[in-house]
Amino acid sequence: MTTVERIHNFAAGPAILPVSVLEEMQRDLIALPGVGMSILEISHRSTTFESILDRAEADIRSLANIPANYKVLFLQGGASLQFSMVPMNLLGPGNAQTADYIDSGSWAEKAYKEAKKVGTANIAATTKAENYSRVPQQSELKLTPAAAYVHMTSNNTIEGTEFKQLPDAGDVALVSDTSSDMFSRPIDVVRHGLIYAGAQKNMGPAGVTVVIIREDLLQRSLEKKSSLPTMLNYAVHAENKSLYNTPPAFAVYALGLVMKWLIAQGGLSKIEQRNQRKAGKLYAEIDRTGFYRGTAQRESRSLMNVTFRLGSEDLERQFVKEATAAGLDGLQGHRSVGGMRASIYNAFPEEGVDALVGFMREFERTRG
Amino acid sequence: MTTVERIHNFAAGPAILPVSVLEEMQRDLIALPGVGMSILEISHRSTTFESILDRAEADIRSLANIPANYKVLFLQGGASLQFSMVPMNLLGPGNAQTADYIDSGSWAEKAYKEAKKVGTANIAATTKAENYSRVPQQSELKLTPAAAYVHMTSNNTIEGTEFKQLPDAGDVALVSDTSSDMFSRPIDVVRHGLIYAGAQKNMGPAGVTVVIIREDLLQRSLEKKSSLPTMLNYAVHAENKSLYNTPPAFAVYALGLVMKWLIAQGGLSKIEQRNQRKAGKLYAEIDRTGFYRGTAQRESRSLMNVTFRLGSEDLERQFVKEATAAGLDGLQGHRSVGGMRASIYNAFPEEGVDALVGFMREFERTRG
Repeated sequence: MTTVERIHNFAAGPAILPVSVLEEMQRDLIALPGVGMSILEISHRSTTFESILDRAEADIRSLANIPANYKVLFLQGGASLQFSMVPMNLLGPGNAQTADYIDSGSWAEKAYKEAKKVGTANIAATTKAENYSRVPQQSELKLTPAAAYVHMTSNNTIEGTEFKQLPDAGDVALVSDTSSDMFSRPIDVVRHGLIYAGAQKNMGPAGVTVVIIREDLLQRSLEKKSSLPTMLNYAVHAENKSLYNTPPAFAVYALGLVMKWLIAQGGLSKIEQRNQRKAGKLYAEIDRTGFYRGTAQRESRSLMNVTFRLGSEDLERQFVKEATAAGLDGLQGHRSVGGMRASIYNAFPEEGVDALVGFMREFERTRG
Repeated sequence: MTTVERIHNFAAGPAILPVSVLEEMQRDLIALPGVGMSILEISHRSTTFESILDRAEADIRSLANIPANYKVLFLQGGASLQFSMVPMNLLGPGNAQTADYIDSGSWAEKAYKEAKKVGTANIAATTKAENYSRVPQQSELKLTPAAAYVHMTSNNTIEGTEFKQLPDAGDVALVSDTSSDMFSRPIDVVRHGLIYAGAQKNMGPAGVTVVIIREDLLQRSLEKKSSLPTMLNYAVHAENKSLYNTPPAFAVYALGLVMKWLIAQGGLSKIEQRNQRKAGKLYAEIDRTGFYRGTAQRESRSLMNVTFRLGSEDLERQFVKEATAAGLDGLQGHRSVGGMRASIYNAFPEEGVDALVGFMREFERTRG
């Protein structure tokens, strides 16, 4: 293997992967051991690939303690396609005609807009007027009785906020977009009807989307079988164990390796402790003097995406430029909000956080 | 690098990739040269990824001589999702209300069935009664005047047949699923309105789908902007240069390397010559004595998927079993038709064809 220089990658997604996972992929890229073909070449109908898929599913189930009445699907198209698939499958006809959306950030709003194309969607609560600087509280939710589902976004990647408790949706199915904090902490699967996540932040590379769906909801998809495009029907993918058509085999394989790595780290409680420690260091530095200003309200602060600003945009540009030069990459905030964002997903090493804290301290010393 | 034993992979897709491409991916997997991050980790908004995407598009354009009034898109979901996206975007309202489908094989029929969920679809010709052993001829086509489009499948992977000339659709947009022979020979892009191909046979690994669409057809997608799911709208992907949401970055990168390899091989005319030579050797062996029987009619024989049978299913099972043991993998025909199928895509080496011919000769000598 060539020795390679790696930098600290604070990108919001696609994002950093564990180096040990990259090394295993590299070693086996030309041919999987005992198979004689690359994972990029093998048939998705081969027993080799089927066991890779089965193993990834089993590890996801074990990590999140998923009961047997939930299906785990590997799909394509990212969370953005789920914004449409969720209402196409779960909204009427034949079911409740309204879906409730908790508008906690830019991506939550996008999900709501797509649902409106499909049926009736209602904003149950929004913090848009506060620049999405916090997530809505339970007491603010105006839920539709017997709604088709309640949609939430567990972590708001752009704004750096995160739900600390799950909203109570009563008997209505809770649907959660967990793309940016999936498996960063334990997840109470049984309180959800459906969970979806694009893999490219905490679970693997871009190109695969995980959907966890409670079996009774598949009935709604079955009722629409004659009209819903086959590829957009959850029931079809569930019946075919994610092999209705050719899956994104390499992305599933890579995700499987990340799951194996997560288990080796001790699972979700352990990784949550580490994530709390990493985020805690950054927020402590942000709060230390007032030179930096966190944009998320404290009770909503994300463990995954730490957003902060400086006194002027000029100073922010300088910060990002010098950080990049120092090997701290991807710190520019999302183009829609500006400022800085440090994305510190599961695989992001604590020494990278320490390096950023050191850089922030030094930047403040020379510019403060 | 570890020395690895590779076998001959006749799988129908995902399928063999050029070894030099695998080696380049392996070398750069931990960190792209000068970038310090893996292609699996970099932001899709980075200049590094944008130039990978731009380069892949430029190479596709140059290989197929694609004029400026066509857009090249990198999507997800495979040909199966295109079966729905094509009618969702191109069939009425506001346009012609009927689409014509040329039913030349199992995948063509699937495309037709998905279109029927969206609007009115008409079978312009079918060879189903002949077990799809040939593609329909021009004289058999019953085309709808002013149809929304005419859909064809250029190569029928399961049945081993291929169009040798493009059907004449007059002024109607010709839409072609080229998943299994894309870039195996020159393609007359300007005679098409839309071309789509899942990458996992001739263009790269599973996980990315290439769509080439004539600009005027995007108008139909634009007219449906308020109702069509954003992720399923060709115009949205065209406006955003395939970066509306996170693309399957690794698959695009890998496809780009395959395109570079194709150019280094001398382009599509050169690769066609090689494919003709490879397929010619296999068909000659099939025709040599009558021990083997080709299932496709001669004038429709595919250069990519060579399908053949033996005197009994018992003998066929024996053939596949012994071939696999001899390092000739993936020769079992599709489960829906049985028999044998040798998929010999661009990257499949001629010595692998020679090895199969040798095996066939020996098998006939001992069992004939």
